[in-house]
Amino acid sequence: MSHQETLTLYVSTFIQQLIHGGVTKAVISPGSRSTPLAYLLQDHPQIDCHVNVDERSAAFYALGMAKVSGRPVVLVCTSGTAAANYYPAVVEAHYARIPLLVLTADRPHELREVGAPQAINQIHLFGQHVKWFSDMAIPEDRDSVIQHVSRSAVKALAKAMDAPMGPVHLNFPFREPLSPVLGQWKTAQTQTPVSIMTGEKTISEKDAVRLSKQVNEAEKGMIIAGPTNDPHATQALLNLADKTGFPLLADPLSHLRSELYESNALIEGYDAFLKSDEIKKLLKPDFIIRFGAMPVSKPLLQFLSPLNDVPHLLVDQGTDWRDPLSSVTEYIDCDEKNISEAISSRADRDPAIAWLDLWKKINQTSIEEIERHTQNEKDEGAVIGRILRSLPANCHVMAGNSMPIRDLDTFWTRHAGPFTLWANRGANGIDGVVSAALGIAAETMEPVYLIIGDLSLFHDLNGLLVAKQHPVNLHIIVLNNNGGGIFSFLPQAAEPVHFETLFGTPPSLDFSHAAKLYSLFYQKLESIEDVEAGIEGLQNEKGVTITEILTDRNENVQVHRALWEKVKAAVSGVL
Amino acid sequence: MSHQETLTLYVSTFIQQLIHGGVTKAVISPGSRSTPLAYLLQDHPQIDCHVNVDERSAAFYALGMAKVSGRPVVLVCTSGTAAANYYPAVVEAHYARIPLLVLTADRPHELREVGAPQAINQIHLFGQHVKWFSDMAIPEDRDSVIQHVSRSAVKALAKAMDAPMGPVHLNFPFREPLSPVLGQWKTAQTQTPVSIMTGEKTISEKDAVRLSKQVNEAEKGMIIAGPTNDPHATQALLNLADKTGFPLLADPLSHLRSELYESNALIEGYDAFLKSDEIKKLLKPDFIIRFGAMPVSKPLLQFLSPLNDVPHLLVDQGTDWRDPLSSVTEYIDCDEKNISEAISSRADRDPAIAWLDLWKKINQTSIEEIERHTQNEKDEGAVIGRILRSLPANCHVMAGNSMPIRDLDTFWTRHAGPFTLWANRGANGIDGVVSAALGIAAETMEPVYLIIGDLSLFHDLNGLLVAKQHPVNLHIIVLNNNGGGIFSFLPQAAEPVHFETLFGTPPSLDFSHAAKLYSLFYQKLESIEDVEAGIEGLQNEKGVTITEILTDRNENVQVHRALWEKVKAAVSGVL
Repeated sequence: MSHQETLTLYVSTFIQQLIHGGVTKAVISPGSRSTPLAYLLQDHPQIDCHVNVDERSAAFYALGMAKVSGRPVVLVCTSGTAAANYYPAVVEAHYARIPLLVLTADRPHELREVGAPQAINQIHLFGQHVKWFSDMAIPEDRDSVIQHVSRSAVKALAKAMDAPMGPVHLNFPFREPLSPVLGQWKTAQTQTPVSIMTGEKTISEKDAVRLSKQVNEAEKGMIIAGPTNDPHATQALLNLADKTGFPLLADPLSHLRSELYESNALIEGYDAFLKSDEIKKLLKPDFIIRFGAMPVSKPLLQFLSPLNDVPHLLVDQGTDWRDPLSSVTEYIDCDEKNISEAISSRADRDPAIAWLDLWKKINQTSIEEIERHTQNEKDEGAVIGRILRSLPANCHVMAGNSMPIRDLDTFWTRHAGPFTLWANRGANGIDGVVSAALGIAAETMEPVYLIIGDLSLFHDLNGLLVAKQHPVNLHIIVLNNNGGGIFSFLPQAAEPVHFETLFGTPPSLDFSHAAKLYSLFYQKLESIEDVEAGIEGLQNEKGVTITEILTDRNENVQVHRALWEKVKAAVSGVL
Repeated sequence: MSHQETLTLYVSTFIQQLIHGGVTKAVISPGSRSTPLAYLLQDHPQIDCHVNVDERSAAFYALGMAKVSGRPVVLVCTSGTAAANYYPAVVEAHYARIPLLVLTADRPHELREVGAPQAINQIHLFGQHVKWFSDMAIPEDRDSVIQHVSRSAVKALAKAMDAPMGPVHLNFPFREPLSPVLGQWKTAQTQTPVSIMTGEKTISEKDAVRLSKQVNEAEKGMIIAGPTNDPHATQALLNLADKTGFPLLADPLSHLRSELYESNALIEGYDAFLKSDEIKKLLKPDFIIRFGAMPVSKPLLQFLSPLNDVPHLLVDQGTDWRDPLSSVTEYIDCDEKNISEAISSRADRDPAIAWLDLWKKINQTSIEEIERHTQNEKDEGAVIGRILRSLPANCHVMAGNSMPIRDLDTFWTRHAGPFTLWANRGANGIDGVVSAALGIAAETMEPVYLIIGDLSLFHDLNGLLVAKQHPVNLHIIVLNNNGGGIFSFLPQAAEPVHFETLFGTPPSLDFSHAAKLYSLFYQKLESIEDVEAGIEGLQNEKGVTITEILTDRNENVQVHRALWEKVKAAVSGVL
């Protein structure tokens, strides 16, 4: 694709999405760098463009329009002090709560901070007076960049309209030449527009009817419950699954795996069986409704990633929707329970029995294979499987990053648990995990079992001092594979030269000394056969304890991969 | 009050408000500068304090607690890199949507950026990863500072809990000595705690019952409708007034003065009659429910300001509540229509007829006096009164800052209008008013009448160029008093030496030349008797026009003050 075509596709996609979101007005101040935005807005039959030479006047003019319509008006100017002239009206819009979409053109990154003419620092130019700032990507024709520009338009509109309304600022770096292709709106290849439903904690009658219609017409729907802090929607999600016959894929941090322990709709083995292309093809949905954050499971992500043509609703609160795959077709800011009940109560369909049975059969076969693996193998997954099966019912478990939470996702089937799972999955760091688990123990006043890697435990050893000061009960179970286990699963592991130095980072620590430093109970489980008894024995210990289990990083990778093959074969066998 | 008592009052007030808001846990890392917070949190019987030496661990520990409880946990550390150690957990809390109240101690302003030990720049230390940052006031015992610290606690909790939840950061500058008075919780003089109801667009049954009870028990309630962008609650507010017998004070930007033109409950003359201490005493309410932004009327503000002991609900959307008087007792983030209907439907009282009659009688007397003034006087108020009485019904009017909107507030009674009023009242600037009015004209596609001062028109003369490019109909009526009229009402006006140079700033412009520059219709109305005919004649003009009316700044002040006296006397006469 030529530079000009790429530029046109990128800007056209952005404009189409704005129009889909209800934008009809733009106020443009003349300038060169902003040519792509100005030309294409002016060129579009559905945008009413107003030219206003002085940017200060232009911004107040747009403000006046938006006051009347209550809808965001687009502002476009070139780079340099032009943008700074918008500031008075941006401030007024902020305090008067008027939605404005401020689009400033900028030099590309290589011409910033090098003394290029009319290139000023436009990043966060309006400070705290805009509700959102985004420095946009340089136009490219790759799908991910086109998705980015499309979804940035959606997000900008949502942020501007979310109460209290206000201005947002997007900064567009454009390389020369700056002229787009005009007159091609009818034939332009742009993304399918994405919808937003925002500003409502409760779903409106109209939206409930519209979404229920989609659900009722779907043949192969699926419900995905992602990580959430708020378990109050559990029963409503279960009802939704029962009324529709859609499988309910429950992330380990969804609070659903334990709650729905006995449920018909619960699918918990997907992390293992969605590794297979064959199974993925069989289970391709025609409708997705997802709740909360992105699930932990990477195979599930990879399953969803190519499904851009499938209606995909994301229900989440606020306007920071979590959609790294750019696969969502409608962002919904709504209470999970409220929308689930609104759809369930309007369900008018025979539950999709055959479709759910297919999922259940594959799930059942997979979790049996996982159970067999747990009994017969010695890798970290099997160790975690055995730990989970040795815990007291309904206890609190904290999973470290990055391997423990992933293994737990795979090995926490209905053969283990139920229990309440916690993890630090906001930014997925290995730092601070011990202290967070101690805080959970302090707040619950119940024993917490922390399953953690050796690097992560090392990182937050200091946190253990709290054991001397507060009566918390935390059982730290460290899988010591002497270094960073998850890196062995990465392509980088194929390069042995610097791998151990930079990724393996073997600390070679014997944690018995750390236990002595803080006067903690300590045990080392030498063999996998000792796991059950060792973990069960912890129920007699008080305070903070450390249980060390030595595992092998390299062997671990091989055995995990073998499990995925076994699951695949077993599923093929029963279908 | 001694330094130590002041420090204790300030910090105790903050802590009491946190407890009222549901905080029960604090995690404290040792340090000197944070002593006031640490000692008083530890001293309070309702706060469970946990000491954690390493701030990185401490913050993750607090994160763990807040994960379980879903309630904000307080973090306290001293100044310097201590605070920077919180960053990893603050970032995790941001993305995991966990509420944290990060309280950092800091040096006072005179020890910042001067090389004082352990003094780093803590302003916006956590960047975009907190939902709110506030650099708190130095502790003082003046009421306004104690109100500030109390309401900052309310706001911090509201921001942390508002979906999506997350961390907030308050930075406290403390002067030495740092030890507060301990053991005085039972006798401590602190502010009445302020309540928050947030996270709901729709009011819950429980809150509806509680608030309705307050309304039903009130004898002298009042409803204040402030400026709003959203007129959809008009009818619901009117019903609320009818059901309760509470007077409905309608700001000119509330969209209610025209809508409720014929209504029984509408009180529009308050800007004139609330200048009198005697009337204010008579009309003192025992319950206030206020909607939207602060009203334009300064007399109304001064009426509300001392009423700190009166229950005062503020209904607004989002958590940026507008309460510059610190007089609100409950902040409510809710849809205006929804809450009005919820209370009206539960109204179980005889409407307060005598109370409303008193308001109506005073209002009626006042607006008759205003009408007389309009007919007989020649000041700017009378000019604006005559303009309003000469406009076509239901037209759009834009009021400039600062005098026009104030005069309009006084002189827009039911004898004028109805029309739709606009103004820039987010930051109340005199800049950009012409362009905003042009934008309103472009969006409504109807004639707009802009009433503006000469300084404000001068400021945005450039905006007039748009008249050449778009078919907008804007009638600019400039009250030319040759300078900044509102300053003559300030105490500064008593100092004649530099007044004209710095405040009066007479531009001595003849706007007929500006009209020629942009090819606009222009007329000058030499005498007040010409106003009606001049304004009515504008209905025959198309495009942008300028009507210039010369007024006298100094005479203006005298005549305004005379009006207030006349209203006061007239009201006394009828009571």
